[in-house]
Amino acid sequence: MLKTHAYAAASVGAPLAPFTFEQRDVGPHDVLIDILYCGVCHSDIHQARDEWGGAIFPMVPGHEIVGRITRVGAHVTKFKVGDMAGVGCMVDSCRECAPCREDMEQCCEKGMAGTYNSTLMDRKTPTYGGYSTQLVVTERFALKVPEGLDPAAAAPLLCAGITTYSPLRQWNCKAGDRVAVVGLGGLGHMAVKLAASMGAEVTVLSTSRDKEADARRLGAKGFEVTKEEGIFDKLAGRFDLIIDTISAPHDYNQYLKTLRPRGTMVLLGVPPKPTSVAAFSLIGGNKRLVGSMIGGIAETQEMLDYCASKGVVSDIEVIPVQQINEAYERMMKGDVRYRFVIDIASLKSAAAR
Amino acid sequence: MLKTHAYAAASVGAPLAPFTFEQRDVGPHDVLIDILYCGVCHSDIHQARDEWGGAIFPMVPGHEIVGRITRVGAHVTKFKVGDMAGVGCMVDSCRECAPCREDMEQCCEKGMAGTYNSTLMDRKTPTYGGYSTQLVVTERFALKVPEGLDPAAAAPLLCAGITTYSPLRQWNCKAGDRVAVVGLGGLGHMAVKLAASMGAEVTVLSTSRDKEADARRLGAKGFEVTKEEGIFDKLAGRFDLIIDTISAPHDYNQYLKTLRPRGTMVLLGVPPKPTSVAAFSLIGGNKRLVGSMIGGIAETQEMLDYCASKGVVSDIEVIPVQQINEAYERMMKGDVRYRFVIDIASLKSAAAR
Repeated sequence: MLKTHAYAAASVGAPLAPFTFEQRDVGPHDVLIDILYCGVCHSDIHQARDEWGGAIFPMVPGHEIVGRITRVGAHVTKFKVGDMAGVGCMVDSCRECAPCREDMEQCCEKGMAGTYNSTLMDRKTPTYGGYSTQLVVTERFALKVPEGLDPAAAAPLLCAGITTYSPLRQWNCKAGDRVAVVGLGGLGHMAVKLAASMGAEVTVLSTSRDKEADARRLGAKGFEVTKEEGIFDKLAGRFDLIIDTISAPHDYNQYLKTLRPRGTMVLLGVPPKPTSVAAFSLIGGNKRLVGSMIGGIAETQEMLDYCASKGVVSDIEVIPVQQINEAYERMMKGDVRYRFVIDIASLKSAAAR
Repeated sequence: MLKTHAYAAASVGAPLAPFTFEQRDVGPHDVLIDILYCGVCHSDIHQARDEWGGAIFPMVPGHEIVGRITRVGAHVTKFKVGDMAGVGCMVDSCRECAPCREDMEQCCEKGMAGTYNSTLMDRKTPTYGGYSTQLVVTERFALKVPEGLDPAAAAPLLCAGITTYSPLRQWNCKAGDRVAVVGLGGLGHMAVKLAASMGAEVTVLSTSRDKEADARRLGAKGFEVTKEEGIFDKLAGRFDLIIDTISAPHDYNQYLKTLRPRGTMVLLGVPPKPTSVAAFSLIGGNKRLVGSMIGGIAETQEMLDYCASKGVVSDIEVIPVQQINEAYERMMKGDVRYRFVIDIASLKSAAAR
């Protein structure tokens, strides 16, 4: 077993604190990743506070992991020692059901093994995430991180990047398309960068003007404030695609109005309560309200390669792990542009003392 | 002007009664259709009772029209005298906006000219529908009804047929797909026939067992009663596509549960109030809740040709126009299998007396 240093929440809502756990030795199909950086996703907070139910404690959050391969199992073919690798939201799945066979492991019929706050496919061994010094993972669920990408700024691609890349590809975002991005946070800023990199004309829809300059710097051509009177009528029939990253309550019907015929609104955020949808908001104009959940492993690799080719990474603020609780507080206030990334060297040096 | 005999509602909810109106002479791009049959759509009742608002009276309902061309304008190229023709829900649109240019005239940015309870594109001349002896229409909005189709049973294809054919095509229904049809009425029975004709394995979801034998006769392989305890869990992850024809309130989230990953639920019915949708019902499994409204003219022609090639028509009960009010009452009770069609000869002979 491999003794591993980490930061964990001991119980619901407890501040994160140093924690040590053991994980399996490197098996024939496994790789060992020496973690360099781990992005801080808003879902880390939701889960550490058990806002989705069923949380498993102690919890080591973190599913935006980048590091170097330091050991490979005897049968590993995809990686060699020294390679830069990443792990996102999953560390395994059944590999046999229809979704797994169709490269949609995130929809595994048996339930994927989440990177943390989950169990391996034995449904017993708890999983611990990337706020830690190292991770053993089956090579099939490790991604190759192109050397051209800055490892810290690439970490958020493993969740925020694939979560926004996947719906842009599923719904065929292409040059000239009018794409709205609702909300400019961790997901939203990636959606703007990615859609703009695909040639789309991006408009950010936000509740205030605060982030207009940022939005334009990230690649948006338009910026609209959704609290302004009549804004949804002004935008009626405008967009081919809406990427909605908001988890606060909002009226989908108003946003659907801004779609062109056959346009698509993609939900990425989960508001606390269900939202009322009028059938005619969809029927008039053959519109589509759809969901998208992260992406499969093959698609995640495609996204990383795409980002390397386009030079797209996340805007980040690097913090030592000792500042994680303060970072959570700042995230709750929306005070981060646009992703905290933990420099895991801070964890290693503290553990060494 | 052409004097035309019809049946009309004089005011909101008034019983339909004999009515005479004048319509334009046949212009250079027009055809005159001697109406033989007109299907009775549930939306005829909604509109005659002004349940959707903005109804225009007197109202001559009817948008499932089949008849013979008896006159053609000087520049008409698509039809000759004696051809069998049909008219569905539209008689014109702006022809210039993006949706019109993309063969989605039903989504015309200026608003299509509905066949009845609407105005022509001058936004002044009221339109009167197919509960009448004849109709002048621009050839562009008239369909060619293949001679192989029974004209009475083909009439409902102009609305019920295209409304179900279009989403099956949009969402790529193909051999082996598992398709659920929710509700077995005018739309539902066409959805079953069409999906089965495309090779799909069709399951009807109904509130009772009453129509099981009918469903199987129409081509369904499965039949499930949605009021049975645990039925949605039993069907979880089953369907590629759901065609939902229900206008009564129902919980979309339960039906979404029965979709496979990336499956699609198409709304055709408009419940009286909006329905609550949990974002996670869509995000988990990348599912799609979409609307579809009739179909464009090119697609309607494609549907008629398809139905002729497959021998698909509506199950009908032919009535004289004098029984229309009784037919409405029976439709309100669901007492029709599956579409009333008015034999317009009954109107002509009464008018001749």
